[in-house]
Amino acid sequence: MVKIWGGQKNSSVRLSLPMVCFVWEIAMIILFGVFIRYNEETDSHWIETRKEKNISSDLENDFYFRYPSFQDVHVMIFVGFGFLMTFLQRYSFGAVGFNFLIAAFGIQWALLMQGWFHSLDWADGKIKIGIENMINADFCVASCLIAYGGVLGKVSPVQLMVMTLFGVTLFAIEEFIILTVLHVRDAGGSMVIHTFGAYYGLAIARVLHRPSLDKSKQGSVYHSDVFAMIGTLFLWMFWPSFNSAIADHGDGQHRAALNTYLTLASCVLTTVAVSSLVHGKGKIDMVHIQNATLAGGVAAGTAAEMMISTYGSLIVGFICGIISTCGFAYLTPLLESKLRLHDTCGIHNLHGMPGVIGGIVGAVTAATATEHVYGHEGLIKMFDFEGEFADRVPTVQGGYQAAGLCVALAFGIVGGTVVGFILKLNIWGDAPDENCFEDDVYWEVPEEDEESPPPHA
Amino acid sequence: MVKIWGGQKNSSVRLSLPMVCFVWEIAMIILFGVFIRYNEETDSHWIETRKEKNISSDLENDFYFRYPSFQDVHVMIFVGFGFLMTFLQRYSFGAVGFNFLIAAFGIQWALLMQGWFHSLDWADGKIKIGIENMINADFCVASCLIAYGGVLGKVSPVQLMVMTLFGVTLFAIEEFIILTVLHVRDAGGSMVIHTFGAYYGLAIARVLHRPSLDKSKQGSVYHSDVFAMIGTLFLWMFWPSFNSAIADHGDGQHRAALNTYLTLASCVLTTVAVSSLVHGKGKIDMVHIQNATLAGGVAAGTAAEMMISTYGSLIVGFICGIISTCGFAYLTPLLESKLRLHDTCGIHNLHGMPGVIGGIVGAVTAATATEHVYGHEGLIKMFDFEGEFADRVPTVQGGYQAAGLCVALAFGIVGGTVVGFILKLNIWGDAPDENCFEDDVYWEVPEEDEESPPPHA
Amino acid sequence: MVKIWGGQKNSSVRLSLPMVCFVWEIAMIILFGVFIRYNEETDSHWIETRKEKNISSDLENDFYFRYPSFQDVHVMIFVGFGFLMTFLQRYSFGAVGFNFLIAAFGIQWALLMQGWFHSLDWADGKIKIGIENMINADFCVASCLIAYGGVLGKVSPVQLMVMTLFGVTLFAIEEFIILTVLHVRDAGGSMVIHTFGAYYGLAIARVLHRPSLDKSKQGSVYHSDVFAMIGTLFLWMFWPSFNSAIADHGDGQHRAALNTYLTLASCVLTTVAVSSLVHGKGKIDMVHIQNATLAGGVAAGTAAEMMISTYGSLIVGFICGIISTCGFAYLTPLLESKLRLHDTCGIHNLHGMPGVIGGIVGAVTAATATEHVYGHEGLIKMFDFEGEFADRVPTVQGGYQAAGLCVALAFGIVGGTVVGFILKLNIWGDAPDENCFEDDVYWEVPEEDEESPPPHA
Repeated sequence: MVKIWGGQKNSSVRLSLPMVCFVWEIAMIILFGVFIRYNEETDSHWIETRKEKNISSDLENDFYFRYPSFQDVHVMIFVGFGFLMTFLQRYSFGAVGFNFLIAAFGIQWALLMQGWFHSLDWADGKIKIGIENMINADFCVASCLIAYGGVLGKVSPVQLMVMTLFGVTLFAIEEFIILTVLHVRDAGGSMVIHTFGAYYGLAIARVLHRPSLDKSKQGSVYHSDVFAMIGTLFLWMFWPSFNSAIADHGDGQHRAALNTYLTLASCVLTTVAVSSLVHGKGKIDMVHIQNATLAGGVAAGTAAEMMISTYGSLIVGFICGIISTCGFAYLTPLLESKLRLHDTCGIHNLHGMPGVIGGIVGAVTAATATEHVYGHEGLIKMFDFEGEFADRVPTVQGGYQAAGLCVALAFGIVGGTVVGFILKLNIWGDAPDENCFEDDVYWEVPEEDEESPPPHA
Repeated sequence: MVKIWGGQKNSSVRLSLPMVCFVWEIAMIILFGVFIRYNEETDSHWIETRKEKNISSDLENDFYFRYPSFQDVHVMIFVGFGFLMTFLQRYSFGAVGFNFLIAAFGIQWALLMQGWFHSLDWADGKIKIGIENMINADFCVASCLIAYGGVLGKVSPVQLMVMTLFGVTLFAIEEFIILTVLHVRDAGGSMVIHTFGAYYGLAIARVLHRPSLDKSKQGSVYHSDVFAMIGTLFLWMFWPSFNSAIADHGDGQHRAALNTYLTLASCVLTTVAVSSLVHGKGKIDMVHIQNATLAGGVAAGTAAEMMISTYGSLIVGFICGIISTCGFAYLTPLLESKLRLHDTCGIHNLHGMPGVIGGIVGAVTAATATEHVYGHEGLIKMFDFEGEFADRVPTVQGGYQAAGLCVALAFGIVGGTVVGFILKLNIWGDAPDENCFEDDVYWEVPEEDEESPPPHA
Repeated sequence: MVKIWGGQKNSSVRLSLPMVCFVWEIAMIILFGVFIRYNEETDSHWIETRKEKNISSDLENDFYFRYPSFQDVHVMIFVGFGFLMTFLQRYSFGAVGFNFLIAAFGIQWALLMQGWFHSLDWADGKIKIGIENMINADFCVASCLIAYGGVLGKVSPVQLMVMTLFGVTLFAIEEFIILTVLHVRDAGGSMVIHTFGAYYGLAIARVLHRPSLDKSKQGSVYHSDVFAMIGTLFLWMFWPSFNSAIADHGDGQHRAALNTYLTLASCVLTTVAVSSLVHGKGKIDMVHIQNATLAGGVAAGTAAEMMISTYGSLIVGFICGIISTCGFAYLTPLLESKLRLHDTCGIHNLHGMPGVIGGIVGAVTAATATEHVYGHEGLIKMFDFEGEFADRVPTVQGGYQAAGLCVALAFGIVGGTVVGFILKLNIWGDAPDENCFEDDVYWEVPEEDEESPPPHA
């Protein structure tokens, strides 16, 4: 046991990293070749499809409904998550670079995994993809990037690739159970993305706990905090697009964007308030601003497309700003000292708790939906009370929503624990404790000018 | 008098800042609960509305006309304005962070204030909101962020919140007078947003003048100038969206984007030219590039949706680049020495003078409009010569446009002066003169590594 | 000869830069006044055009098909290219600032040059412009910014303006020959933009070779590499918009975006793999991540809108990541030592080779197109086999595509060589060898705080 899980660390990834990248990319090419085809709207037969289906304009191609939102989501995934994690004084390359690597791999694997569950054309056994699959792949990867936040600076790129492979796989299964089997609504993924991703990452971080970690490099420096604000702001600004990207056309997308906009605005104020309040001298902490201001977007994920009302949105943001900031101030230190759970970016405060809140808010909002508020057709459209679900009523839907939350939690915790033990194997090239939070281990770092002392050596 | 306006500064905001944030956010929740509802296009009854009104496609929901532009504007507000102000060597947290705080508060208050004036449904006394309100709220907040530029580094976050509360209120009133009462066109807000915002901020800066300010920290350092360029570029790139976001559907939005694109391109060249010309050794000054290149966008605000012609747009940019750069080089020092007006970001050069130019250009363009150029229906649509304004002719419209500019100026100067005296009260926690332009007063700033001397201590 | 091409360098641009900017901008205003008008969709007569042409909705205005993509492209041009070049330790102002200057000038000149070739209304001799012209102008400028990457840090702003003037001119001609005369498809510009731009820049760099260049300042520092990642990521994320911006409405844009998304994802994995493999200790090099990850987007430019298939896209990315990274590791040093070609940003690896690959992939994909795959109408629409080209078949089209690639190469190499000799004249204010890669020559650079030694003096 000691042999495979302990012993001397060898952080060289010169063989393992290229091998993993090559093998997995070749696997992707083969699987795409076998399984993935253009869907009706990306295929050049579209011109004929239009005539057959009597579609009046090219604008009815889903591309025009969703592409602007897709690009916003794409920015969140690569710049948002990437830069949010650059706050460490000497781990910016790893933050942005590994985020880039695992997201780029993850979206390919997600297209396959989600495709098998959601976009399989049973007529020919092929997965047919278009813009909605691209958005969903980005969403799926988001859960793995959230998990990365929990182990930032403590794992090797090979471990991250493994973590992403399993993460995407687990995501696709829990998503299928929640959205299809339980018929739950979760357009912005409070449960499916955030709750799962956070607890997946936390479980891994718990298993990989390093008791004698050198935390001196874990702080930020002035300009690294400014870089991190780039990530924060792009996440914050584009979150309305995240929560509305795959909502229903028309009022669905419109309402999801509006509600998220309001929740986020409200969240900023309580974050600032609590941040100042918990500091001895009333000073605001950048860690809170960088993270807790986003909690509202997480919590709005499930209910944003519902008729939660504008003030309901504000209330959700109000609460999340408080809980998330208090989480950073009080809960994170406690988790570490009591549960031996070191959560580098505080994903429990930004995605874990707000995700659970979002799931609960969604369940309550669904359970209290009425025809008066939604309209007869609006209610059916909102919850897809059609086909085999035509008889389901809002109160029952609320119960299923709550069940969905439990599934997300279970997949995150159990899946993360199992994957954690796999990642603990001593073959993945992770850095020794004293070199954690150091880009130098996996990156060629430029030497600073010799004439002046290195500013942050 | 001395007691409430002078005396020893106490910059602690531990009680006042959380209190203001909590009280105001709770007020927002209550007011939203009482007044704000989804409009027709964000409500789930939309599916029925579509049938009633015989709307052929979900695409006709205003969301699809304006959401991409909204997101661009949103980036301008939070990243654009935020990063533009990070140029100070040690005030980046305050620049980005307080910008974030007041914008998040301001958009909520703006939804209410603008809602009462423009989106009140008299049938039930409720404000009905959708994407256009979100854009307008961002616009409204822009005026307060402009004003922030004038007092950057010299005020406390509590003062900023007060300034934003009054700023949004004044904005909504002047906007109502200009757009509705005077029936003036100002799609990109040269007058309503920029002129008002700039003179509002300048009047406050004048009243709050600190004669013995320590200006040693007011300069930039190398990398803070690069951060500021992020703000500049996102403002510059998305300005066509800003000026076209609420223009008329179809050719209106299209033309506003094109004209703004041209004005901005032209403005860059004259900014570089003058910047080099006014420097003893022909070197270009980053302050000019960061700011004066944007003056064209400001000045295009009113006339961009009109048939100003493509070369007309270039001329406006040409002139603004020159005037704005000369303003930085010659006028700003003069204003400070003669008028005791210290304008941290040079908002007079970027928003004040170009805003006034934009108002004048708009008035002239309107006054010279003809049916030949616009087409019969085009002219009516452009200036909304309908209903009670059916008899107004272009020359008269030009006069009203000029009157609108005066209203914006008056609201800015008078309102700013009054608010300035309120902010001078010695209860808002502003920093003593020697601590201005220092994040350390309101922010928990990371300690630099001890092994090397702090690079910009 | 020595006199005009050698001798003492005088890097002052105090007269030449303002003069060039003013004269050229005034020329633009005059030429726009004579030649450029609003097109049908930007003109206020649109309301009447709609009725005449029986257009059912304002949404059919091309603005709504292309504006979101335009804004993404715009970000790539100004933030993407600008920040990508900030990696040098002391040339960030020049990277972002001169990129800004020449792009702003270039788009105006491009509107004219491309307008004469593609948008001239023979009825009145005017160029009619709208959103598609704006995108094409940005595209055209991209080729000049690519060329800038080859000479970054070694030329004066005046030289850059001259280089852009000729670059845009040459671009418009080769584009006309390739797209119109040869009737070649190149929506994302693998040939027209990237191949031409890269070889244009390389030829200039070759002619301007400085044998005794001081390369000590050519490296990066830690935070300049993080700034450069901003450029990389915005280019990477928005490349699907670049390749789809002017593709056919409907499936064309949709498919181009999807293919590019896949190619780029695949490219990241092989870049990381090869970067680690070629390093002695398996460490990843930021130069590769910043550049080679984008090679897939370049190579997807021609074929992205075709039915290249999803796994075909992955394969293109797979190959480009390998070739581009190997280019940085092995070819760039070779080019410099053997060919005396100093390529600051490695444009040969990022744009040159991948552009050629893209041209070849496009030719092969076109040559193998069948009615079975594209559909009868789809094939005609894809390659515009209409009018005088109605009889052309895919195999022939493949030949023409290959011919197009040769035209782009020829224009780049020959044009660049000629322009290089013009730029070698000793009148343009370029810096002496020892001051290359130094912002201080053309920019007013802030003095660092005196208390601490300058961090990167």
